[in-house]
Amino acid sequence: MSTVLVLNGPNLNLLGTREPAIYGATTLADVDALCRTAAAGHGLTADCRQSNHEGVLVDWIHEAGKAYAAGDLKGVVLNAGAYTHTSLAIADAIRGTGVPVIEVHITNVHAREAFRHHSYLSPVARGIIVGLGPNGYVLAIAALAGLPPKA
Amino acid sequence: MSTVLVLNGPNLNLLGTREPAIYGATTLADVDALCRTAAAGHGLTADCRQSNHEGVLVDWIHEAGKAYAAGDLKGVVLNAGAYTHTSLAIADAIRGTGVPVIEVHITNVHAREAFRHHSYLSPVARGIIVGLGPNGYVLAIAALAGLPPKA
Amino acid sequence: MSTVLVLNGPNLNLLGTREPAIYGATTLADVDALCRTAAAGHGLTADCRQSNHEGVLVDWIHEAGKAYAAGDLKGVVLNAGAYTHTSLAIADAIRGTGVPVIEVHITNVHAREAFRHHSYLSPVARGIIVGLGPNGYVLAIAALAGLPPKA
Amino acid sequence: MSTVLVLNGPNLNLLGTREPAIYGATTLADVDALCRTAAAGHGLTADCRQSNHEGVLVDWIHEAGKAYAAGDLKGVVLNAGAYTHTSLAIADAIRGTGVPVIEVHITNVHAREAFRHHSYLSPVARGIIVGLGPNGYVLAIAALAGLPPKA
Amino acid sequence: MSTVLVLNGPNLNLLGTREPAIYGATTLADVDALCRTAAAGHGLTADCRQSNHEGVLVDWIHEAGKAYAAGDLKGVVLNAGAYTHTSLAIADAIRGTGVPVIEVHITNVHAREAFRHHSYLSPVARGIIVGLGPNGYVLAIAALAGLPPKA
Amino acid sequence: MSTVLVLNGPNLNLLGTREPAIYGATTLADVDALCRTAAAGHGLTADCRQSNHEGVLVDWIHEAGKAYAAGDLKGVVLNAGAYTHTSLAIADAIRGTGVPVIEVHITNVHAREAFRHHSYLSPVARGIIVGLGPNGYVLAIAALAGLPPKA
Amino acid sequence: MSTVLVLNGPNLNLLGTREPAIYGATTLADVDALCRTAAAGHGLTADCRQSNHEGVLVDWIHEAGKAYAAGDLKGVVLNAGAYTHTSLAIADAIRGTGVPVIEVHITNVHAREAFRHHSYLSPVARGIIVGLGPNGYVLAIAALAGLPPKA
Amino acid sequence: MSTVLVLNGPNLNLLGTREPAIYGATTLADVDALCRTAAAGHGLTADCRQSNHEGVLVDWIHEAGKAYAAGDLKGVVLNAGAYTHTSLAIADAIRGTGVPVIEVHITNVHAREAFRHHSYLSPVARGIIVGLGPNGYVLAIAALAGLPPKA
Amino acid sequence: MSTVLVLNGPNLNLLGTREPAIYGATTLADVDALCRTAAAGHGLTADCRQSNHEGVLVDWIHEAGKAYAAGDLKGVVLNAGAYTHTSLAIADAIRGTGVPVIEVHITNVHAREAFRHHSYLSPVARGIIVGLGPNGYVLAIAALAGLPPKA
Amino acid sequence: MSTVLVLNGPNLNLLGTREPAIYGATTLADVDALCRTAAAGHGLTADCRQSNHEGVLVDWIHEAGKAYAAGDLKGVVLNAGAYTHTSLAIADAIRGTGVPVIEVHITNVHAREAFRHHSYLSPVARGIIVGLGPNGYVLAIAALAGLPPKA
Amino acid sequence: MSTVLVLNGPNLNLLGTREPAIYGATTLADVDALCRTAAAGHGLTADCRQSNHEGVLVDWIHEAGKAYAAGDLKGVVLNAGAYTHTSLAIADAIRGTGVPVIEVHITNVHAREAFRHHSYLSPVARGIIVGLGPNGYVLAIAALAGLPPKA
Amino acid sequence: MSTVLVLNGPNLNLLGTREPAIYGATTLADVDALCRTAAAGHGLTADCRQSNHEGVLVDWIHEAGKAYAAGDLKGVVLNAGAYTHTSLAIADAIRGTGVPVIEVHITNVHAREAFRHHSYLSPVARGIIVGLGPNGYVLAIAALAGLPPKA
Repeated sequence: MSTVLVLNGPNLNLLGTREPAIYGATTLADVDALCRTAAAGHGLTADCRQSNHEGVLVDWIHEAGKAYAAGDLKGVVLNAGAYTHTSLAIADAIRGTGVPVIEVHITNVHAREAFRHHSYLSPVARGIIVGLGPNGYVLAIAALAGLPPKA
Repeated sequence: MSTVLVLNGPNLNLLGTREPAIYGATTLADVDALCRTAAAGHGLTADCRQSNHEGVLVDWIHEAGKAYAAGDLKGVVLNAGAYTHTSLAIADAIRGTGVPVIEVHITNVHAREAFRHHSYLSPVARGIIVGLGPNGYVLAIAALAGLPPKA
Repeated sequence: MSTVLVLNGPNLNLLGTREPAIYGATTLADVDALCRTAAAGHGLTADCRQSNHEGVLVDWIHEAGKAYAAGDLKGVVLNAGAYTHTSLAIADAIRGTGVPVIEVHITNVHAREAFRHHSYLSPVARGIIVGLGPNGYVLAIAALAGLPPKA
Repeated sequence: MSTVLVLNGPNLNLLGTREPAIYGATTLADVDALCRTAAAGHGLTADCRQSNHEGVLVDWIHEAGKAYAAGDLKGVVLNAGAYTHTSLAIADAIRGTGVPVIEVHITNVHAREAFRHHSYLSPVARGIIVGLGPNGYVLAIAALAGLPPKA
Repeated sequence: MSTVLVLNGPNLNLLGTREPAIYGATTLADVDALCRTAAAGHGLTADCRQSNHEGVLVDWIHEAGKAYAAGDLKGVVLNAGAYTHTSLAIADAIRGTGVPVIEVHITNVHAREAFRHHSYLSPVARGIIVGLGPNGYVLAIAALAGLPPKA
Repeated sequence: MSTVLVLNGPNLNLLGTREPAIYGATTLADVDALCRTAAAGHGLTADCRQSNHEGVLVDWIHEAGKAYAAGDLKGVVLNAGAYTHTSLAIADAIRGTGVPVIEVHITNVHAREAFRHHSYLSPVARGIIVGLGPNGYVLAIAALAGLPPKA
Repeated sequence: MSTVLVLNGPNLNLLGTREPAIYGATTLADVDALCRTAAAGHGLTADCRQSNHEGVLVDWIHEAGKAYAAGDLKGVVLNAGAYTHTSLAIADAIRGTGVPVIEVHITNVHAREAFRHHSYLSPVARGIIVGLGPNGYVLAIAALAGLPPKA
Repeated sequence: MSTVLVLNGPNLNLLGTREPAIYGATTLADVDALCRTAAAGHGLTADCRQSNHEGVLVDWIHEAGKAYAAGDLKGVVLNAGAYTHTSLAIADAIRGTGVPVIEVHITNVHAREAFRHHSYLSPVARGIIVGLGPNGYVLAIAALAGLPPKA
Repeated sequence: MSTVLVLNGPNLNLLGTREPAIYGATTLADVDALCRTAAAGHGLTADCRQSNHEGVLVDWIHEAGKAYAAGDLKGVVLNAGAYTHTSLAIADAIRGTGVPVIEVHITNVHAREAFRHHSYLSPVARGIIVGLGPNGYVLAIAALAGLPPKA
Repeated sequence: MSTVLVLNGPNLNLLGTREPAIYGATTLADVDALCRTAAAGHGLTADCRQSNHEGVLVDWIHEAGKAYAAGDLKGVVLNAGAYTHTSLAIADAIRGTGVPVIEVHITNVHAREAFRHHSYLSPVARGIIVGLGPNGYVLAIAALAGLPPKA
Repeated sequence: MSTVLVLNGPNLNLLGTREPAIYGATTLADVDALCRTAAAGHGLTADCRQSNHEGVLVDWIHEAGKAYAAGDLKGVVLNAGAYTHTSLAIADAIRGTGVPVIEVHITNVHAREAFRHHSYLSPVARGIIVGLGPNGYVLAIAALAGLPPKA
Repeated sequence: MSTVLVLNGPNLNLLGTREPAIYGATTLADVDALCRTAAAGHGLTADCRQSNHEGVLVDWIHEAGKAYAAGDLKGVVLNAGAYTHTSLAIADAIRGTGVPVIEVHITNVHAREAFRHHSYLSPVARGIIVGLGPNGYVLAIAALAGLPPKA
């Protein structure tokens, strides 16, 4: 169980240029570096990916499910961006694979537009970390690192 | 009109391992075999496919529309998984091509979470078969086989 | 377990004359004959009844519950007509007796008025078959015939 | 077409004693007499009935449908009482038989409890007369008498 | 009390040319003539007016209120057209003057678009007559004629 | 005023076999015996009935209304089962007769499915006793016994 | 800035005769006199008007906006009657002119029908005074008098 | 298990003077005396308290939870007044301690304002007694007395 | 068909001074000039009018309907301002006359307050142009110019 | 009747430092001084209190109720802060004691977040003054001073 | 800034064969040709693309964002088909890149099914053109051509 | 800034005994110890408190606001228990003081009852950590420790 998968969803590749007053100046590459350092601090490797395609995120969670079942993966840090609020397919992928997922949002979604207040993913996540900026990824990796081994 | 297209949507590739208490132990390969046998019993060939991508399902329904218009396809058996509840694009593909579609759900979606009770696809399906397990696919192929030829 | 009970609810006695553009020209007698033939094909006898009275349908499901408990009945095919959308009493009768019920609708209720989209019976049905015309009864009998014997 | 059927639903047999401050002192027998006189004034016979049973009302509308189809009935005056607000079965009976129905309410239901504001029957009625007391039956018979003969 | 006021609201001046498949070929002049004849049959004079202005309708109801208080007016027949569904001001005018009002709709508004199902005027009307075509005005005048004299 | 009428609605005849994990093992005959004993303890006779027909329950409440008006009945204990949540006709019967009714539910309906949380009967009941098992009937009879005589 | 404009909307000309149990016996002329006296107490002139026409109220607020911009008007006291609950046009007129408006209601609208609880005008009013009878106008004039001069 | 705790929430100290047309003339001291007598009749002691503070009610239920766990308390009779409709904290206290609670309301809350129809407490109460006046407390104590001993 | 009617509703006479940060500095006179030029470019005359009165807008659409029927009018460009969101009477006028209407909004109403998101007029408009500033009128005239002649 | 009670609810002790852009720089001590001066101007004494505890506010209203009944209190000026929107207990306290209450809000709550638009207290208040800053307290005291003596 | 990107979403490749009674006989190739001609008329090049994949549309908008930032693109004409009503990801892509987008719909979506009335894209579009057929694309290109250069 | 305030709301004093299947066996004393250790690891002191009283939590946040303004407090870790879902007063206290708050929930509230899905506090929290058990407090202290110093 030496890996954590860090998945970023649609538009997170725009980080740093996307509405910086809301999302800040950190780029996705910065976030990935932060995650790799944080994972290393727990003796883990971070595998960081981004996609704008709902189906690709589903595929990756299936891949994670197999790795988790094989004892190779500690869990998934997932910032699904806008799919958080619209994707039952991703929620079902989490449900169906049983892989532990920590849902992360950089901004405080509850202080923004109403359509960002509801997450289809939260009911199937192990934990949820919201509003703490890129540091949320670091805390999520710490949370995954602290989970008991798969029974 | 010698073919039926059997389309499975997101997470149905997990069948057999996905929440077996809910979905049972039958795998997708088992379902495909069941469909091929059932189709053969009606003198038809079953073309079985699965994708986690909404766009791919739309593309396949377009392909089916053309085959139906050409008189090569009897219709589609569609278990769109979670996209059942979120995809207007698939519903519009059915509407736009006019290909006959039988919507199938393995489990009784009406006895589960509220978000599974509404289907965007049902209003444009020819028929709907719910809760009868893998046998639902068999009944759906029988239903397609019994449809009158395209006018 | 040599019997299936086929119950039709309010206004289904009008079949053939009731809005034929929607319901077709098949009469209830035709449907009953279809059911008897289909049941015979599975070595079963179809007992076909119709009532416009909610209470009578509840009484008949109680009778079915007893026959099922006694091992004399395979299950119920139920087209409850308008009571589908208003009768908690029938739903509770199914729940209370535990008799397997396949809910059938001749037309695609999801392509019609909004008040036909919700069924109080679906959550307690074993299976649901919608929109396939009188053939839906035939498929429902096939579905009942394929159920494993009562444990 | 010498008959009008006047159907009263649940609790209308209590007229005269039922909440007289709301419904007045006229009894159902008085209403029936009023209807017979009014019908006679148009050269028609009024057949007046009352039942507390939803199924009986459905049965009677079916009977009316046959008489209307046979050219023996001018139409139905229907005060379905509480079933106005809950019975899809009665609405479907009207829809299914095509018999002309004038919906009548003695009191102004829109000035009373919210649950009396919605009628399942109104969309399938030919006309609706509300709040005019027992005189509403008289006007409804006049309205039926004025309808053009069945095409 | 020798007068009835017949008020028609917005777009009713289009009668005869306005969506004749829905509203029929009768013009507003025809309706007015019908009303005058009907009123005369009860020994009353019909004062028929039409306006597309909400404020004018309010003004006329105030005028009616004064005439009613003076014993010169039997009541108002009101087809407020689209203002039925949007005008609290007209409803308050009826409430505030206490003049008896019979609400009339030519078509069966409950069989049309959802926004026509709710009337702000119904709770303050003495009676409501819906769906009986121009004959509805005639019945409304009969209803007003039958009201007991103002106490 | 020597009688109490104990009315049980749809499916309560299944007590003892109906979902015993929810409803317990007590049969309806047991409940009736309990009621007769409890009534006797207050010098009253319990008249216990059950029906699956909404119309029959309305008829019986009318009968009770007459007995109450005649001074022969203390009141009604009513467990209307599923009709609690759907029957305006029963509610209107209570309203129309004015007979005192204690609404009883064996289970805690508020801890069950959402559709059991709303009762059309509660606003017209004298009292409501929920969740106390068959003992609820005993307490309801005590409550009726303690009511002041009809004014 | 020597003037205050006091605008009364639909049906307020009925004050004194309009439902006196709710609105009291004070007439609109009385209210106007009260306003003139109150304004004089603050060295202001009250210009009092009433209309049943939404468009006239919009026109008057435009006129007020110009007078306010010219430094001739202190602000508007507005009791828009029923238009309070339906008129976006009046709200936009306030927004568009920027004239200070104190919304007044004679009765406590929150203790009356639900449709009187929402005001389209409140979000654009400077202040709101509810339920204090004709004295509410006096307090509103005091409030306007106390506003700092236009920047 | 010799004690029952009788808790009254906000404004119940006003009993006797609070809207006597609704709540009657019985004072809280009278209710307490009634409870003490009723408890004594079952060999129990009633500990009667009232508070207007939500937090105090939570504290007292915690105290009751400990006494119940220690075998010293039979259960709680709780009339939480307005907190019934707003307090998740009290509901969680009942859930968290597991102490048996009978919810009591003096008036028939379902016949009053809509905001009194929903109770956060009902889903976690053992039983609910509504509308039977101060006698409801007596019946609740009887219900508690009849509960089987804590397992 | 040499004319287009350009109708502006309530508060559009304030353009240029009304919330310039939202609506810009262009005045209604500027818009009218723009429309006349644009119309001339298509060989048409623009008849530009503004009113704050709903009834006047209805009257003008009736006038347009007659001109359109007479072949004198190409269609209507309509910015109904706040009446867009509240006026069924204007919508019915469009429906009733059948005159082609292009609905225009200067600002992006979907990026503003929720009450501006719904238009009663859109379902009966030929086309809708939103958010493009005064240029929206120019595009609307181009759209009208491009419509096929009245059948 | 020489006293007015001025009650401030949760967070109003923060006035002056709490979001000064919204609430201004006036402190609660300033408001209290303003109230004392205003009361003195009417020959009254202002008793000013603040609490963050819902229960304490309920207790104080009970105390006010007794003083009002004894003829010692003119009424209550109540700014209940956030409890305005959540506290049925305070509303019931006002209802139960019958003490006259003027509800005050410093800011225009209808121009702020949606959850501030609804007040549980308004239906039981004598009057409501919103959005007029600290001057609202002064006007409220004037309103109380102007109330007729307790009957 | 010599280019406009014309993006068509799911099922728009079916144009010409898709429900021609609704969408007309123009094919997507026809629309593309129309766009190229229209763009050329403004000295621009139209880059026309279609995809059934939500993720591909997001990717293309990102590409457009970069081209716009580089001064190579004038803006995007977007007909997102069914994703209009379901895709927050596309809306966030527009928000995140800041590229000007004109939303186009061939048909009048507000005159069709309710689920087509809401657009997630409208709040972030510069302009919206609805119901004007293929001409809507031409007008949208004209609108983009008329935008001021990027600041 | 050497302190963090750790506030626990209603029923959290029951931790360890409260529904251990949901909340686990850790007691509040254990959580406090965990917090003190975690704080020490960041060179901070944890001040841990619990109350069942909403008003006390408001008071403590005011106290925290003063300490934060004085530079003595780093921020607040707040698990408000049931008040999370009902207390606008606590939310306003956070808003009013501006003290940084990390909202913590031990369990995944989004996987539990619907009433636990909405938090009044989230919009005003700096960050939210959900579902990670007692470790959530540790991560929240880490998050506070990582905040930049107060500007």
